[in-house]
Amino acid sequence: MGKEIGITVKKSEDFSEWYTQLVIKAELADYAPVKGLIVLRPDGYSIWESLKSSLDSKLIATGHRNGFLPVLIPESLLGKEKDHFTGFNPEVFWVTHSGDGEIGDKLALRPTSETLAYTMYAKWIRSWRDLPLKINFWNSALRAEIKATKPFLRTSEFLWQEGHTAHTGKDEAEKEVMDILGIYKKTVEDELAIPVITGKKSEKEKFVGAVYTLTMESLMPDGKALQMGTTHFLGQNFSKPFEVKYADKNNVENFVWQTSWGVSWRLIGGMIMVHGDDKGLVLPPRVAPIQVVIIPIYHSDEEKNTVLEKSSMIKQELETCKLRVRLDDRDQVTPGFKFNDWEMKGVPLRIEIGPKDLEHDKVVLVRRHNQQKQEHPINGLVEKIVTDLDNIHNDMFSDAQKILTDRTINVETYDEFKSELEKGMLIKAAICENSSCEEKIKEETGSDIRVIPDGCEDNGSKCIYCDGQSKIRPLFARGY
Amino acid sequence: MGKEIGITVKKSEDFSEWYTQLVIKAELADYAPVKGLIVLRPDGYSIWESLKSSLDSKLIATGHRNGFLPVLIPESLLGKEKDHFTGFNPEVFWVTHSGDGEIGDKLALRPTSETLAYTMYAKWIRSWRDLPLKINFWNSALRAEIKATKPFLRTSEFLWQEGHTAHTGKDEAEKEVMDILGIYKKTVEDELAIPVITGKKSEKEKFVGAVYTLTMESLMPDGKALQMGTTHFLGQNFSKPFEVKYADKNNVENFVWQTSWGVSWRLIGGMIMVHGDDKGLVLPPRVAPIQVVIIPIYHSDEEKNTVLEKSSMIKQELETCKLRVRLDDRDQVTPGFKFNDWEMKGVPLRIEIGPKDLEHDKVVLVRRHNQQKQEHPINGLVEKIVTDLDNIHNDMFSDAQKILTDRTINVETYDEFKSELEKGMLIKAAICENSSCEEKIKEETGSDIRVIPDGCEDNGSKCIYCDGQSKIRPLFARGY
Repeated sequence: MGKEIGITVKKSEDFSEWYTQLVIKAELADYAPVKGLIVLRPDGYSIWESLKSSLDSKLIATGHRNGFLPVLIPESLLGKEKDHFTGFNPEVFWVTHSGDGEIGDKLALRPTSETLAYTMYAKWIRSWRDLPLKINFWNSALRAEIKATKPFLRTSEFLWQEGHTAHTGKDEAEKEVMDILGIYKKTVEDELAIPVITGKKSEKEKFVGAVYTLTMESLMPDGKALQMGTTHFLGQNFSKPFEVKYADKNNVENFVWQTSWGVSWRLIGGMIMVHGDDKGLVLPPRVAPIQVVIIPIYHSDEEKNTVLEKSSMIKQELETCKLRVRLDDRDQVTPGFKFNDWEMKGVPLRIEIGPKDLEHDKVVLVRRHNQQKQEHPINGLVEKIVTDLDNIHNDMFSDAQKILTDRTINVETYDEFKSELEKGMLIKAAICENSSCEEKIKEETGSDIRVIPDGCEDNGSKCIYCDGQSKIRPLFARGY
Repeated sequence: MGKEIGITVKKSEDFSEWYTQLVIKAELADYAPVKGLIVLRPDGYSIWESLKSSLDSKLIATGHRNGFLPVLIPESLLGKEKDHFTGFNPEVFWVTHSGDGEIGDKLALRPTSETLAYTMYAKWIRSWRDLPLKINFWNSALRAEIKATKPFLRTSEFLWQEGHTAHTGKDEAEKEVMDILGIYKKTVEDELAIPVITGKKSEKEKFVGAVYTLTMESLMPDGKALQMGTTHFLGQNFSKPFEVKYADKNNVENFVWQTSWGVSWRLIGGMIMVHGDDKGLVLPPRVAPIQVVIIPIYHSDEEKNTVLEKSSMIKQELETCKLRVRLDDRDQVTPGFKFNDWEMKGVPLRIEIGPKDLEHDKVVLVRRHNQQKQEHPINGLVEKIVTDLDNIHNDMFSDAQKILTDRTINVETYDEFKSELEKGMLIKAAICENSSCEEKIKEETGSDIRVIPDGCEDNGSKCIYCDGQSKIRPLFARGY
């Protein structure tokens, strides 16, 4: 494969350039004409659709339903919950004209839909019989990003889902944010083979307008943490200004308790970073647009006919088992070129079939993620491949889990903290209740509290920054 | 059911108000805070998802793939194909600011994505091996609508899909617009039970920028025609200004031949109008969010237990066959109230179960679309209901087909034309080649050529307007 086609930098040497080359050269996405916006090509969108379908079925099974919200929100509405609005203000795109005419109350492109959704919920919810109301919206959000834009990780428009629920009780709403976080974790682990750490965000890092935010985080190979999904317990912070009320069984009016939560195509960015290597993408089998690629190998026309016939037969058998298979019968390129091409695109499993293999009724299987080669009889091949794909997923997950564990380190001094941070470690450090310590650490090192996992209370240590009595021992890293 | 809950006007007396009440009261959609925008509630969105899933699988099976395009298009791009741009100019929403800052090249919210898609295609297409390129985008379009906005029919943002394909040959592209029109027709007939008439749009009514436009139209009960989907043969009208070129097998550069096509949630509007009645929605079974509702009838607590137990059992059995079933076990309302409620929401089939029915091991089935009542033994009920739902679909389609046929009339004089138009008829009339006749008819009657079906050539008649020699005998109506 020519230099200009393959990946020209090493993951370990220029991570940022390596990432961008993978996205563009493997044809997942491309830059749109407006800076900060991307287009998803079919392979990229197909991964999103797989994720969406997996998550959607879990949400439906737990009593959520989907709806649609328009992208335009009047300015007057966005300002109704002031903390919330202030947080988004610098990022909002404003529509001021339609055709040649100016619009009175200018319109925001939704940065998120709390304000619009709850305006509607206030109309729809009348009594306890209407609750819980659990609606999810598969849409996009728009937040003007100027600097450090990056496909999937930081773009001015991104695909996501935003769930918005209303409940009669505080406990039920708090259970919802926990349950959804569990569903997110399962989806990311089962589909993308990425281990995540779940817990709470600090006061400083929570969603503006939430009582508290739960998060799942993972560590990327460059030592930065990626926030992969958040759920927000909103309490009654929105139901009061938006007057989302219900009559209870005694006909007494109460404000509802609310939650909101979302994951975005950022998950795809995480998948690329965690699993990709110097040859290109490495796709987890369950979301791979093509799971198995068959490369026929032949020298004469006679060999070609036999090999292609057998290849087609195998392809058909695999497709009967709902596997996504490509037979690469291109004439104008060599098998070696094809190997490189599909390795760059990250196809999890390659089948090589040549005349000698057919003589012995076997094929060669090559795993993308560890390059492991194995011969296997054609007899029983389908079952073998179905099992292999599951094993590949499990191996990819264990590899990532091992790295995450190995790169999580406990530190007791601020010097240690700073030096481990430079090595790209995820740092467990004790910290006091004083939020200024968190702020100072952020100022001085660029890192912040990524997640406060359950059970990380620590009253017996010294705060890493001020030496005062610690309260918790959360995880620190720089973030995306 | 109280006046304020049920539909308060008759379909035949105030069609427009009747339509709006159905949409709002059956909870398909609601008005958003910005005039001309709507929110889809779960039942409305569920119908869209059913349609989407049916159409999507047909597109995938014919070699199309999905992608994602951002909603923002720079002004400079939109103006590249001038005819196209001029058509949308008055309807475009403009983003001029992000945060507090002004944007240099102002950004349009996409009214449609030809310009953006083909800018990308010009980068992606290099050789004949990259063709055909057939990508579909499930997104929304934004066109500022000021007057006569109506849920699903005319809104400033609407959900749709837009397909964009590029081909090496003219014939292949022309086959594509025909094939897609066939897929659209099949989807609308099979899912929504609405008969459509397919053919060409006149020069005057075609998509700006297309060589020609194919359309499918249906007649609504108020005598207006609804354009339910269009496919556009773009020729090389876009590939030339956007320089979408490929190298053929002899390495000679050529411009590609292109198509674009779309259907929107307008289809849901058509479904409501064609099938709804004075009691509310009548949903075609295949897209109904709830296909079967079970209403338990009881007087004592003992009866309640027996009836509810049997009802749950039946519900489970139906769900095993992938039917969408609701058991309405609300305590606080009467069976009569429930009948009205689910009739308003258009559920195709109702099962009534009372103690006397159970004594005889039977239930009562009531069809929504014609109110037909039937008893049936519990034994074999699932098979009966599966068949019934198909029969209901077929009956609804035949009813609509009969109305369409009965209301299509051939006229030979302009007086007849005008009087039949007032009766809400779809009019077949001969017309000459002179486009000014079509324009005059539009001016004087508000009607235009809706569709020029295949085989409607007519050289032997007089033009309905100028008495000159006719060329075709197309279908006229006022349109939505």
